[in-house]
Parts: sequence; C-alpha cells; structure tokens
Amino acid sequence: MTRVRIFDTTLRDGEQTPGVSLSPEQKVEIAAALDGLGVDAIEAGFPVVSDGEARAVRAVCAEGLSAEICGLARTERGDIDAAADAGLGYVHAFIATSDIHLEHKLRISRDAAVEKAVAAVEYAKSRGLRVEFSAEDATRTDAGFLARIFGEVARAGADRVDIPDTVGYSTPAHMAEMVRGAAEATGGLPVSVHCHDDFGLAVANAVSGVQAGAACAHVTVNGIGERAGNASLEEFAMALQCLRFGEAYETGIVPARIYEASRLVSRLAGVQVQPNKAIVGENAFGHESGIHTHGVLSNPLTYEPISPELVGRTRRLQVGKHAGIHGMNAMLEEYGIRPDREQSRLILEKVKEAGDRGAHVTDVELLSMAGDVMRDGGAAGSIVRLEGFSVSTGIGTMPYAFVRLDIDGKRFSATDYGVGPVDASLNAVQKIIGRASRIRIGDYGLASISGGSGASCEVTVRVEDEKGGSVSAKSVGEDIVTTSVKAVIDGINRIMLKRAVGPGAGPGRPPA
Amino acid sequence: MTRVRIFDTTLRDGEQTPGVSLSPEQKVEIAAALDGLGVDAIEAGFPVVSDGEARAVRAVCAEGLSAEICGLARTERGDIDAAADAGLGYVHAFIATSDIHLEHKLRISRDAAVEKAVAAVEYAKSRGLRVEFSAEDATRTDAGFLARIFGEVARAGADRVDIPDTVGYSTPAHMAEMVRGAAEATGGLPVSVHCHDDFGLAVANAVSGVQAGAACAHVTVNGIGERAGNASLEEFAMALQCLRFGEAYETGIVPARIYEASRLVSRLAGVQVQPNKAIVGENAFGHESGIHTHGVLSNPLTYEPISPELVGRTRRLQVGKHAGIHGMNAMLEEYGIRPDREQSRLILEKVKEAGDRGAHVTDVELLSMAGDVMRDGGAAGSIVRLEGFSVSTGIGTMPYAFVRLDIDGKRFSATDYGVGPVDASLNAVQKIIGRASRIRIGDYGLASISGGSGASCEVTVRVEDEKGGSVSAKSVGEDIVTTSVKAVIDGINRIMLKRAVGPGAGPGRPPA
Repeated sequence: MTRVRIFDTTLRDGEQTPGVSLSPEQKVEIAAALDGLGVDAIEAGFPVVSDGEARAVRAVCAEGLSAEICGLARTERGDIDAAADAGLGYVHAFIATSDIHLEHKLRISRDAAVEKAVAAVEYAKSRGLRVEFSAEDATRTDAGFLARIFGEVARAGADRVDIPDTVGYSTPAHMAEMVRGAAEATGGLPVSVHCHDDFGLAVANAVSGVQAGAACAHVTVNGIGERAGNASLEEFAMALQCLRFGEAYETGIVPARIYEASRLVSRLAGVQVQPNKAIVGENAFGHESGIHTHGVLSNPLTYEPISPELVGRTRRLQVGKHAGIHGMNAMLEEYGIRPDREQSRLILEKVKEAGDRGAHVTDVELLSMAGDVMRDGGAAGSIVRLEGFSVSTGIGTMPYAFVRLDIDGKRFSATDYGVGPVDASLNAVQKIIGRASRIRIGDYGLASISGGSGASCEVTVRVEDEKGGSVSAKSVGEDIVTTSVKAVIDGINRIMLKRAVGPGAGPGRPPA
Repeated sequence: MTRVRIFDTTLRDGEQTPGVSLSPEQKVEIAAALDGLGVDAIEAGFPVVSDGEARAVRAVCAEGLSAEICGLARTERGDIDAAADAGLGYVHAFIATSDIHLEHKLRISRDAAVEKAVAAVEYAKSRGLRVEFSAEDATRTDAGFLARIFGEVARAGADRVDIPDTVGYSTPAHMAEMVRGAAEATGGLPVSVHCHDDFGLAVANAVSGVQAGAACAHVTVNGIGERAGNASLEEFAMALQCLRFGEAYETGIVPARIYEASRLVSRLAGVQVQPNKAIVGENAFGHESGIHTHGVLSNPLTYEPISPELVGRTRRLQVGKHAGIHGMNAMLEEYGIRPDREQSRLILEKVKEAGDRGAHVTDVELLSMAGDVMRDGGAAGSIVRLEGFSVSTGIGTMPYAFVRLDIDGKRFSATDYGVGPVDASLNAVQKIIGRASRIRIGDYGLASISGGSGASCEVTVRVEDEKGGSVSAKSVGEDIVTTSVKAVIDGINRIMLKRAVGPGAGPGRPPA
C-alpha cells in the first residue's frame, strides 16, 4: 500500500475564495479540526499579505499540532522572511512559469524566473525551512522549461515540487504525464499535485496524478478555493479508499470526522455546500424515489456506494412524487404507525398528489396524511401547534417576538428578543419548550432563495432532546421568519413522536 | 470532429433529488430552456409514477421542441404503456443487472432479468417506440453477464444501450473499459454513459466514456440528481469543448445559454448551486486575491481558463484581506476615483484591517474607505442612506414595513406589505426609489446560514436601472431582514455611482 500525503490548503487557497476572510481564532479552530481529521500538512496562510494573516499563521504554529504547518510565499525574500518570522518550519514557495503568466503578469523572462526560483529556494533553505516549490500554472507551461526549472530548484535544495493546475485546465491523462515529467526532472523528489475544479475534473486529476506516482495532493475541505475551488479533501480521500484501485493507496484521513470538518469549514468560511455535493452534501445519503428507497431498505449497498456512518453521517429517507409503498411504510414504521395495504395505498396517493403540486412532504405532513387516512388523529397528528406568533425588527430596536404554542392541549406564551427576527422567534419558542419539555434547538440552516424577494426559502433545523437524540426538520415558504418557526415546530413534533414511540418499540421495526 | 450526443435528464434523475418536485408547468419551462440550450434529448420524467408526472411528460411532448423527448420506464408493460400513452416516441427502459440488485432488490435470477429486458424491448418496439436500454448498476455488474444482456436486448431491437454508474462507483479507466465492452457486446449500437458523482468523478468518467467511444452522455443542469447527483451538463460540455482533447469533439450546446439555464433550474427545483461550483457557481469567475486580480487585469487568461462571457457570465472582482493595489485601484477606477500612490497604500491598509477582522468589504465600503482617505466624502461617499426602518410579521397578519431613506439630503418615507418581511421591506424601498429615481430591485438571493439561528447570513441582490444597467451587491449580518435592506441600499448606491461616472468617463479606464 502506498501512503498518499494529504496537504490541506483550506486555510490558504480555501480562504482565497472571494468573500471569505477567517480571523486568527477561526484559523486555529479549523487547523485543530484538520489535525484531528488526520491531514499530513496544513497550509495555514500567506503570511506576507497582512498583519492579521501573519498573526493567524503564528497562532496555528503555536498549537503544537501533529500535522506539518506550512505557509505560502512568492519567490521574494520578504515573503520568505514573513513565513519564517511567523514561526513556520516549512514554506510553499511559488513562481509562475507559463509564458502567459511570465509575459502578462510578471513581465520577466524565463531565465529571470529560474533565477528568482533558485535564489528563493536557497534563501529559504538558509533560513532553515523545508521547501515545497510550486511552478504556478504548470499545466500551461512549456514542458521543456518546466523540466528545467524543476531540475534547478531540486539542485538548489527544494524538498518537494508541486504541479499546480492553476486554472483547472488539465485532464487525468495530462496530469499523469506531468507527474512523470516532474519526477524525472527532479531526480525523484516527491511530487505534489494541486488541482483546480474549473471543469469539474479536480478530483479525477488528483487521483490520476497519484496513480502516476505523485506522493501528495493539495486539497481543501468542501473543495473551496479560488473560483471553482480545489480538489475536495473528502472526495479525494474517499475515492482513494473506496474505489477500485486494488487497495493500492492509503491516507491518514479518519473518515468518520469528515462530516464534522465539512460543517465547521462551511460555517466559519460562510461558504455553503450544495445539497448534491459528494460525501458531505445534504442529499449525498438521502433517498426519495420509491425504487431507491425500497432498494436501500432491502440492502443499503443497492443505492449507496459506502455506508453514511463511514463518513460521520446518517441516511435520510424522504417521501414525494417518486415515493413507493416500501419506503413510505418504513418511514411510518419509525413512528410505530402500521397502515394496512389499502390504507398505505391511500396515504401514498395523498403524498403523490402533494408532489404533483410541486410540494415537499415533511415527516409531520406524512404523519398527518396517515392520520387522516387511518382516522387516528391522536397517534399520528402533531402534538405541538403554533397558535399565535408576531415579530418585529428594524433600526434602533432589537428584533423581538411573541409566540403562543398549544402543547398537548395546554397553552404556553412567551416573548423574547434576539440578534435577528428568526433568532428572537426561536428564542421565544425555546423558552416555551424548555419549560414544557427538555428540548433544544440546535443547528439552523437556511438555503436557496433566488429569483426575487418573494421567492421561497427552505429552512432546516436540528432539534435535540436531553438524551442526545436529535431530528432534523425542514419547512418551505415565502416568509422566512414564519417558515423558520414552522420548521422548528415540525422538528419538535418529530422528536416528541420519536420519544413517544421509543427505541425498539413495536415488532418488526427495520434495523437502524 | 465527433459529435457527442447530450441526453439531459434534469427533469427525471434531476427531479429525483430528495425534496424536489416540479409541476407540469415548471417542467415545460425547463424543457424549453434545455431545447434552447441545444441538448439532443430530454428525459422529461417517469410517466408511471403519478398522474401529475404523466401530465407533465405529455405537456413537454406537446411543445414541439427540437430535442427528442424521452421517458423512463421499468421493464414492465404498464410502465411502457404509460410512456407511450403520454405521447412519447422514445423510452428509456431499465432493469438492474448487478447481483446485489438482483438478489436484494428485485429478488430474481439473472435469466429472469434477461427475459424481462428482452420482453420489454420487444413490447416497446411493438408500440413503435425508440428504445434506450439501461442496465442499472452496470458498473457493479459481472462483465460476462452484462455482455450477455446487452447482446440480447440489441438482438431484440434496442436502439441504444446505456451504462449507468448507479452509485458513482466507477473510475475513468473502468468506464472506458465498460464502454468498449458494451460496444462489442451489442455489435456496435450507440452507447451512452450515465455517471453519478458520489466520489466527485462523474464528469471525468463521462469524458473518459466518450474518449472510449461512447456516443452520448446523460447529464443534468447543475449536476442535480439522486444523492450527489449526475455529471453536470455545463462541466461536461465545456470540458469537451475547451480542454486538450485536440478539438476532437463537438456538442450541440450553445455555451452562452448555460448560465441562464443553470439559474432557471436552481430556482424552479429549489436546489442551490454552491459558490465554488465549476462554470455556474457565483465564484467561478470571481477574483479576490491581489495576485489573481492583478493577473486578470493584465490578461484575463492568466487566471481564467475561459472567458466568463462564453458561458453567459461576467467577471467579478472583490477586495479583501488578500487584495493588492492593482485590483483595488481598478475597482476604484470604475467609479472614476484615482488615488495617488500613498492614498492607495492607506486605502489598502483599511481593506486589509477589515479582512483581518473576518469582515467582507463591499464596493460601497471600499468607496467609503477611499473617501475617508482622500477626504472626498462627496464623490466617494454613499448617496442613499437608510435612516429608519421597522418591519413586523406573524400569524394572522401580512408582513408590513416602514422605511425612511435619505437620498442626496432629501428624506423619503414609505410603508408597504409583502409575502414575507424581506419582501415587505423591499417593496417599501422600491416605492421610494421608484419615486426618486427609476431603479428597480431584480434578483434577490440568500445564502448559507449554518450553526444556530444567531449565525450570519449573506444576501445578494441585483439592482437594475431603466437603461438596462445592473449591479449586484452583497451584505452580511445576523438580522436577515435588516441585512437584506442594507444590501439593496448598497446596490442602489453602486448603480447611482456608476451612472454618475457614466460609461467611458475619465481617461485611462480599463476596458470592460
């Protein structure tokens, strides 16, 4: 088995995502998560860009993590000094080598580029740094010139060389060829690949690079980075581990920590992960169509390449227009509800009618449909009802809200304020449910509104109880505040129903 | 040049995305956009799943589009009848062929699967349908058995065969081998590939399939679909067109319509595109770091693999912690502001300070920083100021808002209501600015809140003037409603500043 090195650049290339800025505290928090995730090297930043950035790199170095900490530097003494002064022992020095970059950006000759590269590597070594040298835009660089500059920096003492596919322009076959060329030019130095995703090929290019002998890939959590981002850590590591490469490769990544790291980076960087993102997207282990749900219930491997638990996740079933009897009944079974054949048919009909109207069907709506069909409003109906609700915000006021809930026939009211109208409303709801029952509102997620301020938004919340149980619930609507409160009420009902049924309640429950 | 067929399944596999349901009207709207985009075939749905779905497929067929319209069917007479009855002339019939699916899902033998497949193809042909046959989970199917079933359906009259990588389990080398096997087994029928993205390899696998001789790829707009989704149309088509395949391939795709189609699908399906998504993500042509911005200003090709205009987009520059003098000055220049060397240095310092605090810097904030440094509040300060604002919503009321603006020293107030508190507030703002100046609020987008109801949200709006000019503006904050109003005010200021400067104003402006 070949051990492949994971060089994580979430804190450097990832932070160069337009609109993303991480404070030193946030960088330290992410670096600690990356270390726990098992990456081999962490590129903590680009120390010369600002005082705060240098402070952040210094703070990451001071954490005493297992991973090697690296920082970016141009082939300039000032940049290398900034890296060394930030406490780094390892620098990632780069200069562009393609003609288009040399002519239009750097406005220097090829010879001058070689001179600068060699001088920088020698200087970095003289300051006691390990050096990884990147030939920026390598994939559009003349092959002969690239071999020359790689050879020169290797002779100057570089410890590693890197092939950046700066504009995501390479293909798997081309990247393999480049890796072989770099290994030859440097007399066998370890080669890294740094792939951008402008055509959706970053992970394939990185894998191909490794197959051709690259020792290391530069990756980022969630694939964030300049423009379309970098090869994603989670896709690259899981592809190497799970796909048909004959168990040839291993990495130090602890897959069970992937999802947690993904969520942390998404939250701190403020860059959303799309639902259909591999491994870490909300739907990556979600199933709705009847055929898929039925298959997964029979044997998860039918429609899942890997178990969601492997990467720290859980499976999620949903009903909708494409639902089938098996999946729907499995969802109802979770709440201890067992319709007979004819009842199942009628409930499914209601689900499909809602789907045909373009509506989403939440669990609580499914339970309510089942209750209608089975005339069993008590068992299947919702327990908490939103009876009254009002919220205000503006300038010169804190957002404040009033909420009235009916919980099992008892009325509860509360007011509260918060940092936003949603927060104020949820604080008021939380006051009530904390009083009536020990349930708290965990994560709150808001997705996708596009096409005018009157368009729909989708709110996802996680509701937790004191025993560590949690459910997530979703609501869709035009009024973001009201929709958020409805999602929370839906989640509260789901967790209360789950508790009422209890673990293992009823015969014939499918295995979790 | 080989013409590669694009089979779009946004309306079928894309709609199987958990939580997505499209109404018949929405399907027709998307089908028309796909037709304009130049796809060769549109899989409009799975007619047997519901009445609404059959209606939707019928409606798409009735549009008289140039693309072939196809529908999904299991190898069941009822499914094929539903397809034919919906007006289709082309059916995509599938049965699972891997042992895991045969044993655990279908619970039938290999022989039985072959019988069902052959009977279905014969029946579909007898109903006058063109047939594309899919061996579901082909990439985990025994190679000998796959060759056998492909051979049998070819003899039974299938027009095309498809290789679905149902759980995204394949690699480029493996997909190439499968395509060659299928071509051989069918005696040269056209082969399609249907790649899922569970490990981020869907586009690479589809490209590899085409290189090995596949005539067609199944794709979806934005890569939506079951779990991690399908190979994305935009990445696949642009990779074939732009990368180093020696101009070997062409498709019928009109690249300039890609972005419009992406936005339509995102809006109607309600599935957000992440900012770092290739080709269509918000950041795919965005630049913030000083090095990249400087490069792009010298020659866009330095940091862009293709021109954004090629795919219907525009470039977006931003300042932040990684900003450099060149990019920042280019942005100021757009507003006719030309700081001297020392002033530039001081403005950049302010930008970096803000970035170090983890703050985003909008254009208007940049102008305000420039105004502070250059002591030129008039030219660079904002024109519209938000003086007062209040909004209320709840149950049993329409959301309503009060807004007071100062526009060039004059005060304007307005109230309005809307479908949500943001809509109500923007309606009130629009009332004022429509009165003071002919500006309207176009798209409104909301991104990424995660990690509790008190976390930050990011609002992006597009503001348009009567001459067709438009700008987009962004604001980040905890109170979604106030943040939205601030983003709109920022956008109004940007468009007013742009108009004040006017096209071509001032010497030495960089080319657009």
